[in-house]
Amino acid sequence: MRVMGVDPGLTRCGLSMVVGGTGRQLSMLQVDVVRTPPEMELAQRLLRVADAAEAWMDTHEPEVVAIERVFSQHNVRTAMATAQAGGVIALAAARRQIPVHFHTPSQVKAAVTGNGSADKAQVTAMVTRILGLAVAPKPADAADALALAICHCWRAPMLERMAKAEAMAERQRRMYEERLAQQRKAVIR
Amino acid sequence: MRVMGVDPGLTRCGLSMVVGGTGRQLSMLQVDVVRTPPEMELAQRLLRVADAAEAWMDTHEPEVVAIERVFSQHNVRTAMATAQAGGVIALAAARRQIPVHFHTPSQVKAAVTGNGSADKAQVTAMVTRILGLAVAPKPADAADALALAICHCWRAPMLERMAKAEAMAERQRRMYEERLAQQRKAVIR
Repeated sequence: MRVMGVDPGLTRCGLSMVVGGTGRQLSMLQVDVVRTPPEMELAQRLLRVADAAEAWMDTHEPEVVAIERVFSQHNVRTAMATAQAGGVIALAAARRQIPVHFHTPSQVKAAVTGNGSADKAQVTAMVTRILGLAVAPKPADAADALALAICHCWRAPMLERMAKAEAMAERQRRMYEERLAQQRKAVIR
Repeated sequence: MRVMGVDPGLTRCGLSMVVGGTGRQLSMLQVDVVRTPPEMELAQRLLRVADAAEAWMDTHEPEVVAIERVFSQHNVRTAMATAQAGGVIALAAARRQIPVHFHTPSQVKAAVTGNGSADKAQVTAMVTRILGLAVAPKPADAADALALAICHCWRAPMLERMAKAEAMAERQRRMYEERLAQQRKAVIR
Protein backbone atom coordinates (compact mmCIF):
# COMPACT_ATOMS: atom_id res chain seq x y z
CA MET A 1 0.00 0.00 0.00
CA ARG A 2 1.37 3.41 -1.03
CA VAL A 3 0.29 5.95 1.59
CA MET A 4 0.79 9.71 1.44
CA GLY A 5 0.99 11.16 4.96
CA VAL A 6 0.17 14.83 5.52
CA ASP A 7 0.89 16.98 8.57
CA PRO A 8 -1.12 19.98 7.37
CA GLY A 9 -0.04 23.59 7.87
CA LEU A 10 0.58 26.80 5.97
CA THR A 11 3.90 27.91 7.51
CA ARG A 12 5.17 24.31 7.33
CA CYS A 13 3.29 21.42 5.74
CA GLY A 14 4.84 17.97 6.12
CA LEU A 15 4.41 15.55 3.20
CA SER A 16 5.54 11.92 3.22
CA MET A 17 5.24 8.85 1.04
CA VAL A 18 5.46 5.43 2.70
CA VAL A 19 5.10 1.97 1.18
CA GLY A 20 3.76 -0.84 3.30
CA GLY A 21 4.65 -4.41 2.36
CA THR A 22 3.63 -7.65 3.99
CA GLY A 23 3.38 -7.68 7.78
CA ARG A 24 4.65 -4.60 9.54
CA GLN A 25 7.50 -3.84 7.12
CA LEU A 26 7.33 -0.23 5.99
CA SER A 27 9.69 1.90 3.95
CA MET A 28 9.95 5.58 3.16
CA LEU A 29 9.88 6.77 -0.44
CA GLN A 30 10.14 10.50 0.23
CA VAL A 31 9.59 13.15 2.86
CA ASP A 32 9.54 16.92 2.56
CA VAL A 33 8.25 20.07 4.22
CA VAL A 34 6.51 22.73 2.12
CA ARG A 35 6.88 26.24 3.53
CA THR A 36 4.99 29.43 2.74
CA PRO A 37 5.90 32.86 4.14
CA PRO A 38 3.44 34.21 6.76
CA GLU A 39 3.35 37.61 4.99
CA MET A 40 1.99 36.00 1.80
CA GLU A 41 -1.76 36.28 1.11
CA LEU A 42 -3.81 33.35 2.43
CA ALA A 43 -5.16 32.34 -1.00
CA GLN A 44 -1.62 32.32 -2.44
CA ARG A 45 -0.33 30.24 0.48
CA LEU A 46 -3.12 27.70 -0.03
CA LEU A 47 -2.29 27.62 -3.74
CA ARG A 48 1.38 26.88 -3.05
CA VAL A 49 0.55 24.07 -0.59
CA ALA A 50 -2.07 22.59 -2.95
CA ASP A 51 0.32 22.73 -5.93
CA ALA A 52 3.04 20.92 -3.97
CA ALA A 53 0.66 18.23 -2.71
CA GLU A 54 -0.82 17.72 -6.20
CA ALA A 55 2.65 17.36 -7.72
CA TRP A 56 3.33 14.64 -5.10
CA MET A 57 0.06 12.86 -5.91
CA ASP A 58 0.79 12.93 -9.63
CA THR A 59 4.39 11.72 -9.17
CA HIS A 60 3.88 9.03 -6.52
CA GLU A 61 0.26 8.01 -7.22
CA PRO A 62 -0.61 7.14 -3.61
CA GLU A 63 -3.49 4.69 -3.06
CA VAL A 64 -4.65 6.65 -0.04
CA VAL A 65 -3.97 10.02 1.59
CA ALA A 66 -3.79 10.15 5.40
CA ILE A 67 -4.21 13.62 6.91
CA GLU A 68 -4.00 14.73 10.52
CA ARG A 69 -7.42 15.68 11.86
CA VAL A 70 -7.24 19.03 13.61
CA PHE A 71 -9.53 19.33 16.59
CA SER A 72 -8.39 22.43 18.40
CA GLN A 73 -5.26 24.38 19.04
CA HIS A 74 -4.33 27.12 21.47
CA ASN A 75 -4.16 29.61 18.62
CA VAL A 76 -7.44 29.84 16.68
CA ARG A 77 -5.72 31.48 13.69
CA THR A 78 -3.20 28.62 13.45
CA ALA A 79 -5.97 26.02 13.83
CA MET A 80 -7.91 27.59 10.94
CA ALA A 81 -4.80 27.72 8.73
CA THR A 82 -4.06 24.08 9.53
CA ALA A 83 -7.64 23.05 8.74
CA GLN A 84 -7.54 24.98 5.46
CA ALA A 85 -4.23 23.43 4.36
CA GLY A 86 -5.64 19.96 5.15
CA GLY A 87 -8.83 20.88 3.30
CA VAL A 88 -7.16 21.84 0.02
CA ILE A 89 -5.09 18.63 0.11
CA ALA A 90 -8.20 16.52 0.79
CA LEU A 91 -9.85 18.28 -2.15
CA ALA A 92 -6.89 17.50 -4.43
CA ALA A 93 -7.14 13.81 -3.45
CA ALA A 94 -10.92 13.76 -4.00
CA ARG A 95 -10.39 15.25 -7.50
CA ARG A 96 -8.11 12.27 -8.26
CA GLN A 97 -10.51 9.71 -6.71
CA ILE A 98 -7.90 8.90 -4.06
CA PRO A 99 -9.56 7.97 -0.73
CA VAL A 100 -8.78 10.32 2.17
CA HIS A 101 -8.56 9.25 5.81
CA PHE A 102 -8.15 11.47 8.84
CA HIS A 103 -6.38 10.40 12.01
CA THR A 104 -6.22 12.41 15.22
CA PRO A 105 -2.83 13.33 16.75
CA SER A 106 -3.43 10.90 19.63
CA GLN A 107 -4.31 8.05 17.23
CA VAL A 108 -1.04 8.74 15.38
CA LYS A 109 1.03 8.86 18.56
CA ALA A 110 -0.62 5.72 19.92
CA ALA A 111 -0.03 3.83 16.64
CA VAL A 112 3.64 4.80 16.42
CA THR A 113 4.78 4.84 20.06
CA GLY A 114 2.03 2.93 21.88
CA ASN A 115 1.31 6.07 23.89
CA GLY A 116 -1.38 8.53 22.77
CA SER A 117 0.31 11.43 24.54
CA ALA A 118 3.92 10.76 23.48
CA ASP A 119 6.13 13.82 22.92
CA LYS A 120 7.71 14.89 19.62
CA ALA A 121 11.08 13.32 20.44
CA GLN A 122 9.50 9.89 21.07
CA VAL A 123 7.51 10.09 17.83
CA THR A 124 10.63 11.03 15.84
CA ALA A 125 12.66 8.24 17.47
CA MET A 126 10.03 5.60 16.70
CA VAL A 127 9.51 6.85 13.12
CA THR A 128 13.28 6.62 12.53
CA ARG A 129 13.37 3.07 13.92
CA ILE A 130 10.19 1.81 12.16
CA LEU A 131 11.35 3.04 8.75
CA GLY A 132 14.98 2.01 9.37
CA LEU A 133 16.29 5.50 8.59
CA ALA A 134 19.98 6.30 8.98
CA VAL A 135 19.19 9.76 10.37
CA ALA A 136 16.15 11.14 12.20
CA PRO A 137 13.78 13.11 9.93
CA LYS A 138 13.73 16.86 10.55
CA PRO A 139 11.92 19.17 11.24
CA ALA A 140 9.12 17.78 13.45
CA ASP A 141 6.62 18.31 10.60
CA ALA A 142 8.53 15.81 8.44
CA ALA A 143 8.52 13.22 11.24
CA ASP A 144 4.81 13.87 11.85
CA ALA A 145 3.97 13.36 8.18
CA LEU A 146 5.81 10.02 8.26
CA ALA A 147 4.04 9.07 11.51
CA LEU A 148 0.68 9.81 9.83
CA ALA A 149 1.49 7.43 6.96
CA ILE A 150 2.72 4.72 9.35
CA CYS A 151 -0.41 5.14 11.48
CA HIS A 152 -2.56 4.68 8.41
CA CYS A 153 -0.71 1.56 7.24
CA TRP A 154 -1.25 -0.04 10.63
CA ARG A 155 -4.79 1.19 11.28
CA ALA A 156 -6.08 0.50 7.75
CA PRO A 157 -6.52 -3.30 8.15
CA MET A 158 -8.31 -2.68 11.46
CA LEU A 159 -10.57 0.01 9.93
CA GLU A 160 -11.34 -2.39 7.07
CA ARG A 161 -12.23 -5.20 9.48
CA MET A 162 -14.46 -2.79 11.40
CA ALA A 163 -16.23 -1.69 8.19
CA LYS A 164 -16.78 -5.36 7.21
CA ALA A 165 -18.11 -6.21 10.68
CA GLU A 166 -20.47 -3.24 10.52
CA ALA A 167 -21.71 -4.26 7.06
CA MET A 168 -22.26 -7.82 8.32
CA ALA A 169 -24.19 -6.55 11.38
CA GLU A 170 -26.31 -4.37 9.09
CA ARG A 171 -27.14 -7.37 6.84
CA GLN A 172 -28.13 -9.46 9.87
CA ARG A 173 -30.29 -6.64 11.22
CA ARG A 174 -32.16 -6.46 7.89
CA MET A 175 -32.63 -10.26 7.73
CA TYR A 176 -34.01 -10.21 11.27
CA GLU A 177 -36.45 -7.40 10.41
CA GLU A 178 -37.63 -9.20 7.26
CA ARG A 179 -38.23 -12.36 9.24
CA LEU A 180 -40.19 -10.39 11.86
CA ALA A 181 -42.31 -8.81 9.12
CA GLN A 182 -43.04 -12.27 7.66
CA GLN A 183 -44.07 -13.59 11.08
CA ARG A 184 -46.40 -10.62 11.54
CA LYS A 185 -48.01 -11.32 8.17
CA ALA A 186 -48.43 -15.00 9.12
CA VAL A 187 -50.13 -14.02 12.38
CA ILE A 188 -52.54 -11.66 10.57
CA ARG A 189 -53.51 -14.44 8.13
CA MET B 1 -17.15 45.88 -10.07
CA ARG B 2 -18.38 42.25 -10.15
CA VAL B 3 -18.02 40.78 -6.67
CA MET B 4 -18.62 37.19 -5.65
CA GLY B 5 -19.66 37.00 -1.98
CA VAL B 6 -19.14 33.77 -0.05
CA ASP B 7 -20.60 32.75 3.30
CA PRO B 8 -18.51 29.60 3.67
CA GLY B 9 -19.82 26.34 5.08
CA LEU B 10 -20.14 22.65 4.31
CA THR B 11 -23.74 22.01 5.35
CA ARG B 12 -24.80 25.27 3.70
CA CYS B 13 -22.49 27.53 1.68
CA GLY B 14 -23.94 30.85 0.52
CA LEU B 15 -22.78 32.15 -2.87
CA SER B 16 -23.74 35.53 -4.34
CA MET B 17 -22.83 37.69 -7.29
CA VAL B 18 -23.28 41.45 -6.98
CA VAL B 19 -22.45 44.21 -9.46
CA GLY B 20 -21.47 47.62 -8.14
CA GLY B 21 -22.03 50.65 -10.37
CA THR B 22 -21.21 54.30 -9.75
CA GLY B 23 -21.87 55.60 -6.25
CA ARG B 24 -23.59 53.23 -3.88
CA GLN B 25 -25.86 51.60 -6.49
CA LEU B 26 -25.59 47.82 -6.29
CA SER B 27 -27.52 45.04 -7.95
CA MET B 28 -27.78 41.32 -7.50
CA LEU B 29 -26.94 38.96 -10.37
CA GLN B 30 -27.50 35.67 -8.55
CA VAL B 31 -27.65 34.09 -5.13
CA ASP B 32 -27.68 30.44 -4.13
CA VAL B 33 -26.94 28.09 -1.26
CA VAL B 34 -24.88 24.95 -1.91
CA ARG B 35 -25.70 22.10 0.49
CA THR B 36 -23.80 18.92 1.26
CA PRO B 37 -25.13 16.11 3.48
CA PRO B 38 -23.37 15.81 6.88
CA GLU B 39 -23.02 12.03 6.43
CA MET B 40 -20.93 12.51 3.25
CA GLU B 41 -17.13 12.17 3.56
CA LEU B 42 -15.31 15.45 4.25
CA ALA B 43 -13.20 15.31 1.07
CA GLN B 44 -16.32 14.69 -1.04
CA ARG B 45 -18.16 17.57 0.64
CA LEU B 46 -15.21 19.90 -0.06
CA LEU B 47 -15.20 18.70 -3.67
CA ARG B 48 -18.88 19.48 -4.09
CA VAL B 49 -18.52 22.99 -2.61
CA ALA B 50 -15.39 23.70 -4.68
CA ASP B 51 -17.06 22.47 -7.89
CA ALA B 52 -20.07 24.72 -7.33
CA ALA B 53 -17.91 27.78 -6.54
CA GLU B 54 -15.69 27.12 -9.59
CA ALA B 55 -18.72 26.83 -11.86
CA TRP B 56 -19.85 30.24 -10.54
CA MET B 57 -16.41 31.77 -11.15
CA ASP B 58 -16.30 30.42 -14.70
CA THR B 59 -19.86 31.58 -15.48
CA HIS B 60 -19.84 35.02 -13.86
CA GLU B 61 -16.12 35.88 -14.03
CA PRO B 62 -16.03 37.95 -10.82
CA GLU B 63 -13.25 40.55 -10.51
CA VAL B 64 -12.88 39.78 -6.82
CA VAL B 65 -14.03 37.12 -4.35
CA ALA B 66 -15.06 38.28 -0.86
CA ILE B 67 -15.14 35.53 1.78
CA GLU B 68 -16.20 35.69 5.42
CA ARG B 69 -13.21 35.40 7.72
CA VAL B 70 -13.89 32.82 10.43
CA PHE B 71 -12.36 33.65 13.77
CA SER B 72 -14.01 31.29 16.19
CA GLN B 73 -17.27 29.55 16.73
CA HIS B 74 -18.81 27.75 19.66
CA ASN B 75 -18.44 24.44 17.87
CA VAL B 76 -14.82 23.70 16.89
CA ARG B 77 -15.89 21.10 14.33
CA THR B 78 -18.18 23.61 12.60
CA ALA B 79 -15.46 26.28 12.68
CA MET B 80 -12.99 23.91 10.99
CA ALA B 81 -15.53 22.91 8.33
CA THR B 82 -16.28 26.58 7.68
CA ALA B 83 -12.58 27.42 7.40
CA GLN B 84 -12.03 24.49 5.02
CA ALA B 85 -14.95 25.46 2.77
CA GLY B 86 -13.61 29.04 2.63
CA GLY B 87 -10.12 27.67 1.96
CA VAL B 88 -11.05 25.60 -1.09
CA ILE B 89 -12.97 28.56 -2.55
CA ALA B 90 -10.00 30.91 -1.95
CA LEU B 91 -7.79 28.32 -3.69
CA ALA B 92 -10.16 28.17 -6.69
CA ALA B 93 -9.98 31.98 -6.98
CA ALA B 94 -6.17 32.00 -6.67
CA ARG B 95 -5.98 29.39 -9.48
CA ARG B 96 -7.91 31.86 -11.70
CA GLN B 97 -5.83 34.88 -10.60
CA ILE B 98 -8.92 36.42 -9.01
CA PRO B 99 -8.01 38.48 -5.92
CA VAL B 100 -9.50 37.23 -2.65
CA HIS B 101 -10.47 39.45 0.27
CA PHE B 102 -11.63 38.37 3.69
CA HIS B 103 -14.04 40.37 5.84
CA THR B 104 -14.99 39.56 9.42
CA PRO B 105 -18.66 39.08 10.38
CA SER B 106 -18.60 42.36 12.34
CA GLN B 107 -17.12 44.26 9.36
CA VAL B 108 -19.91 42.87 7.19
CA LYS B 109 -22.65 43.74 9.69
CA ALA B 110 -21.21 47.23 10.23
CA ALA B 111 -20.98 47.88 6.48
CA VAL B 112 -24.53 46.75 5.76
CA THR B 113 -26.45 47.91 8.85
CA GLY B 114 -24.12 50.44 10.49
CA ASN B 115 -23.99 48.17 13.55
CA GLY B 116 -21.22 45.57 13.95
CA SER B 117 -23.38 43.39 16.19
CA ALA B 118 -26.62 43.52 14.20
CA ASP B 119 -28.78 40.37 14.20
CA LYS B 120 -29.63 38.20 11.20
CA ALA B 121 -33.04 39.83 10.68
CA GLN B 122 -31.49 43.32 10.44
CA VAL B 123 -28.83 42.11 7.98
CA THR B 124 -31.48 40.43 5.79
CA ALA B 125 -33.71 43.55 5.89
CA MET B 126 -30.85 45.87 4.87
CA VAL B 127 -29.60 43.50 2.13
CA THR B 128 -33.15 43.38 0.69
CA ARG B 129 -33.38 47.18 0.74
CA ILE B 130 -29.86 47.89 -0.59
CA LEU B 131 -30.27 45.55 -3.55
CA GLY B 132 -33.90 46.59 -4.16
CA LEU B 133 -35.15 43.00 -3.97
CA ALA B 134 -38.87 42.26 -4.15
CA VAL B 135 -38.56 39.49 -1.55
CA ALA B 136 -36.06 38.91 1.26
CA PRO B 137 -33.32 36.39 0.36
CA LYS B 138 -33.59 33.06 2.21
CA PRO B 139 -32.05 31.20 4.02
CA ALA B 140 -29.76 33.33 6.20
CA ASP B 141 -26.71 31.96 4.33
CA ALA B 142 -27.99 33.52 1.09
CA ALA B 143 -28.50 36.90 2.79
CA ASP B 144 -25.05 36.63 4.39
CA ALA B 145 -23.37 35.90 1.04
CA LEU B 146 -25.04 39.00 -0.42
CA ALA B 147 -24.01 41.07 2.63
CA LEU B 148 -20.40 39.92 2.07
CA ALA B 149 -20.45 41.17 -1.52
CA ILE B 150 -22.06 44.49 -0.52
CA CYS B 151 -19.51 44.92 2.27
CA HIS B 152 -16.70 44.38 -0.22
CA CYS B 153 -18.12 46.87 -2.75
CA TRP B 154 -18.28 49.54 -0.06
CA ARG B 155 -15.05 48.71 1.72
CA ALA B 156 -12.97 48.22 -1.45
CA PRO B 157 -12.46 51.95 -2.25
CA MET B 158 -11.44 52.55 1.37
CA LEU B 159 -9.05 49.58 1.35
CA GLU B 160 -7.56 50.89 -1.91
CA ARG B 161 -7.06 54.39 -0.46
CA MET B 162 -5.39 52.82 2.60
CA ALA B 163 -3.07 50.75 0.39
CA LYS B 164 -2.14 53.87 -1.62
CA ALA B 165 -1.50 55.88 1.57
CA GLU B 166 0.68 53.07 2.92
CA ALA B 167 2.66 52.90 -0.34
CA MET B 168 3.12 56.69 -0.26
CA ALA B 169 4.30 56.55 3.36
CA GLU B 170 6.73 53.76 2.44
CA ARG B 171 8.19 55.84 -0.45
CA GLN B 172 8.63 58.85 1.84
CA ARG B 173 10.30 56.70 4.50
CA ARG B 174 12.79 55.45 1.89
CA MET B 175 13.48 58.96 0.56
CA TYR B 176 14.10 60.13 4.13
CA GLU B 177 16.50 57.26 4.80
CA GLU B 178 18.39 57.91 1.57
CA ARG B 179 18.75 61.58 2.47
CA LEU B 180 19.99 60.61 5.96
CA ALA B 181 22.57 58.27 4.40
CA GLN B 182 23.77 61.05 2.05
CA GLN B 183 24.13 63.47 4.97
CA ARG B 184 26.16 60.88 6.87
CA LYS B 185 28.50 60.43 3.86
CA ALA B 186 28.89 64.24 3.59
CA VAL B 187 29.81 64.44 7.27
CA ILE B 188 32.39 61.64 6.92
CA ARG B 189 33.97 63.48 3.95
